[in-house]
Amino acid sequence: MATRRGKSKGPKTKLRVIPLGGLEEIGKNMTILEYGEDIVVIDCGMSFPEDDMPGIDLVIPDVSYLMKNQEKVRGIVLTHGHEDHIGALPYVLKDLDVPVFGTLLTLGLLKNKLEEHGLAETAQLHTVVPGETVKLGRMSVEFIHTNHSIADSVALAIHTPVGTVIHTGDFKVDYTPIDGEVLDLRRFAQLGSEGVLLLMSDSTNADRPGFTQSEKTVGKAFEKAFEETTKNRILVATFASNIHRMQQVINAAYAHGRKVAILGRSMVNTVKTASELDYLDVPKGTLIDITEIKHYKDEQLVILSTGSQGESMSALTRIALGEHRQVSIKPNDKVIISASAIPGNERNVTRVINELIKQGADVVYQGIEDIHVSGHARQEELKLMLALTKPRFFMPVHGEFMHLTSHKNLAMTMGMKKEDIFVMKIGDVLELGRNQAAINGSVQAGQVMVDGLGVGDVGNIVLRDRKHLSQDGLITVVVTMDKASGTVIAGPDIISRGFVYVREAEGLMEEARDVVLEALEECEAKNITSWNYIKSVIKDTLKNYVWQKTKRSPMILPIIMEV
Amino acid sequence: MATRRGKSKGPKTKLRVIPLGGLEEIGKNMTILEYGEDIVVIDCGMSFPEDDMPGIDLVIPDVSYLMKNQEKVRGIVLTHGHEDHIGALPYVLKDLDVPVFGTLLTLGLLKNKLEEHGLAETAQLHTVVPGETVKLGRMSVEFIHTNHSIADSVALAIHTPVGTVIHTGDFKVDYTPIDGEVLDLRRFAQLGSEGVLLLMSDSTNADRPGFTQSEKTVGKAFEKAFEETTKNRILVATFASNIHRMQQVINAAYAHGRKVAILGRSMVNTVKTASELDYLDVPKGTLIDITEIKHYKDEQLVILSTGSQGESMSALTRIALGEHRQVSIKPNDKVIISASAIPGNERNVTRVINELIKQGADVVYQGIEDIHVSGHARQEELKLMLALTKPRFFMPVHGEFMHLTSHKNLAMTMGMKKEDIFVMKIGDVLELGRNQAAINGSVQAGQVMVDGLGVGDVGNIVLRDRKHLSQDGLITVVVTMDKASGTVIAGPDIISRGFVYVREAEGLMEEARDVVLEALEECEAKNITSWNYIKSVIKDTLKNYVWQKTKRSPMILPIIMEV
Repeated sequence: MATRRGKSKGPKTKLRVIPLGGLEEIGKNMTILEYGEDIVVIDCGMSFPEDDMPGIDLVIPDVSYLMKNQEKVRGIVLTHGHEDHIGALPYVLKDLDVPVFGTLLTLGLLKNKLEEHGLAETAQLHTVVPGETVKLGRMSVEFIHTNHSIADSVALAIHTPVGTVIHTGDFKVDYTPIDGEVLDLRRFAQLGSEGVLLLMSDSTNADRPGFTQSEKTVGKAFEKAFEETTKNRILVATFASNIHRMQQVINAAYAHGRKVAILGRSMVNTVKTASELDYLDVPKGTLIDITEIKHYKDEQLVILSTGSQGESMSALTRIALGEHRQVSIKPNDKVIISASAIPGNERNVTRVINELIKQGADVVYQGIEDIHVSGHARQEELKLMLALTKPRFFMPVHGEFMHLTSHKNLAMTMGMKKEDIFVMKIGDVLELGRNQAAINGSVQAGQVMVDGLGVGDVGNIVLRDRKHLSQDGLITVVVTMDKASGTVIAGPDIISRGFVYVREAEGLMEEARDVVLEALEECEAKNITSWNYIKSVIKDTLKNYVWQKTKRSPMILPIIMEV
Repeated sequence: MATRRGKSKGPKTKLRVIPLGGLEEIGKNMTILEYGEDIVVIDCGMSFPEDDMPGIDLVIPDVSYLMKNQEKVRGIVLTHGHEDHIGALPYVLKDLDVPVFGTLLTLGLLKNKLEEHGLAETAQLHTVVPGETVKLGRMSVEFIHTNHSIADSVALAIHTPVGTVIHTGDFKVDYTPIDGEVLDLRRFAQLGSEGVLLLMSDSTNADRPGFTQSEKTVGKAFEKAFEETTKNRILVATFASNIHRMQQVINAAYAHGRKVAILGRSMVNTVKTASELDYLDVPKGTLIDITEIKHYKDEQLVILSTGSQGESMSALTRIALGEHRQVSIKPNDKVIISASAIPGNERNVTRVINELIKQGADVVYQGIEDIHVSGHARQEELKLMLALTKPRFFMPVHGEFMHLTSHKNLAMTMGMKKEDIFVMKIGDVLELGRNQAAINGSVQAGQVMVDGLGVGDVGNIVLRDRKHLSQDGLITVVVTMDKASGTVIAGPDIISRGFVYVREAEGLMEEARDVVLEALEECEAKNITSWNYIKSVIKDTLKNYVWQKTKRSPMILPIIMEV
């Protein structure tokens, strides 16, 4: 066991690396590094709820461990401006007011979010440029330029007394990126030469062979679509944060003499921020307001919109359903969905495509044309990263268990030893010395659900009830009873919701009432006066009756009013 | 308009073709042909509920039109034994007792289902062989051998007084099928020479270029996996109906000296039926009961199981979660998921893979290995079918709108005229003469939801309530009031479910109670005695209060008990 055998020759203090938060995806939303009295937090993102979390708006990391150690927290360093890396900051900064470090665009996007939560004034935001190093206690964090589906993404090299830790953030290797700069291969190589203690690397596409295509290839697909579409409008839906993609749409529009109107609040915000910060190059007069489209001919227009995931309230979905105030589909509109469906969104995307086609649109989507590329490295790029940095230890991050395992296997094909690779669970603590690493215990970690204004007030019992209610609905039974004698004064009244179409089930409900009444009379005859006992009798009686008659199990809510 | 211009030279009676049922997929679950006093029904399948149908077990076609015309219905002809083509028969035959025609295996699988519903004795089942023709009134139906992911699949040529209609059923062109017989290309060619009035053809993969691979290619992947796995158990999960796939697993197992145990009720049934009917060739002594696996070494075992879609109650899911009574994962078990996720099931499949890997299994899934092929034709095969049959009119079927449209575009690239191709909606009536076709009106059609024992008693209101309940839960407010005076005698009592974790919201619930009480006192002061009015006051008051405090909208159920 290489991980335990080697005697520590260096400082006695160990470096602790802990993935916190991130639903199924380990090391996605937040990872922390702790050395002695110092904690550095990497990213602070949110996740969208899984389908077994009905009603939940979003999920943020459980930061109890940080709150308990808040005097140690030196700062939060951000790898890029995607929701799953910055989206929890408005919630976390409310309780944990620490400095936040990120690149210009990342902080620009963050500011929009903080403004919505009234935190923009108070937050301690520090802009860094790739290449810069920030000292945070006894650790110092170096920001390294990478490529990803959002501009201004960085990897981090965290220099600690026991060695250097590299966190790649989300990355791909794009030799022809839109903004002209390839991921900083030479810096990774240099760090590799100097010695890397631990590499944490993006595993999203670790089970995919080959290379992820360059963002530029999408530009060619746009060019083709624009050339083919001479008379009609073009609508392009993509991720609101993919500035390089938007840049390519704007370029194609400009080249073909079309104006661009932006639809969807989040995209309008991104375009505004990215233009102001010079990450988006919009030729003068190219952008028009959506209300102006009526002044232009179809062949003069491009509408750039959100909704590439078929989200129910998004611009594209509302257009597809004919519910959008400003835009409705005209026959032969060319609609380009420049995205692939994030797992779980496939049905929604398909539904939107169906509706668009029904209205006469000519829809181009991933699968029939190469109209999207991933922002995450595939196997050949991941091997390049491993080869450049040649880490002593390796922790695959940002991926589900299956992806982390694929990444582990990939590293093993390159000669790394199984015992030097750590597939972690959320909350697991990896302790590192100069030449040792081992998982040692865990800290409180996990998810906190946000529902409306409530942060953490919806737990498993509430979710279980919601799921139960959604399956078979609910039957409420109300009885008014005499406090003293225990006789029924009014009711039982039976009201159901989500159980069965009541007009077709009048007989059933009548009979249910009789069954409950009978059970109550039995209780009275036996002189039973415990309300709780009577409630459980009502519940069991009705449950059995309903199951026998319908093979359904609605939630049953017995209520006794005493007078 | 070629479709309307041509004068009818033949019989005055028109042939009517109507797709009935099939959620998003037109012409999937059921299609009917009506000529004068005769109706022929093609298939009678079920759909699985969409995610906006919580609690629903399955969905069957609305057969009101058939019930209204039941004296005309000459029979139901089946193309193959998949659930989406036979699954609604147990429900439909209860009311519509007509002859059913299908191949040996199709009826064998159907009998299993009818037995569960107590209909096996009474149903009028007629076995046909490919090549056979059955006369049904003035139409006659010819059964033609095809290839698909289930054995004994057929296409139909329905010979009518106005011309021949071909319905491909679900098909692919497999030149090296497991059962030795290629789709009957020559018969399709011959029918094409004689003249085909209308082709209805499978559109599932119409947006995919190229050819679907032969089922045999999966055999090679199995062979490779079995060769690599010398010491460990092998679990293969696939569709319970894919007899050819199971045959290949059995072949590989036999070749490597392994026994095969079957897991999952539906697969056990299929293996039994298919073996009895000689569609599955199992070397003697190869099958063992699942309870016997303890008598064999790991390298002597293959477990063939259901659950390739991550279905929550399936064998594989229970194994993955460590909840299966007979099988639990051992480290390095090789698990082969020989399927691709049906749209909507992606997250469930991923979850199962994650859990299996967490338990130490080595999981092979589609994407990392070519371990599955589709049963549906891609573009080159669809073009072959169009070229062989050269139909006068064309109706793409079995696919969502996007697939039907792709299929339409494909036919147009081959020279068919737009106006000769009919992309239908469910219930649309296509009227055909010898040289004319036009959509003319529609009949009642759609979906009937089955929930437990209830068929059609869950409608949109119930579903809407279930969805509402699942999002934010429910608050019940009960008040006992004096009938005469309208004063509050007991309550208001407030009980919530699925809304918020109550212990953390005691204050909120207290205050809610006060707010309601205040509103009630106001009503009393104003001498309002209408229970309905008071209920709506309670509802509105509480709704506003809760929204303001939590930004949530639980269902509010006010109940007044009068004494």
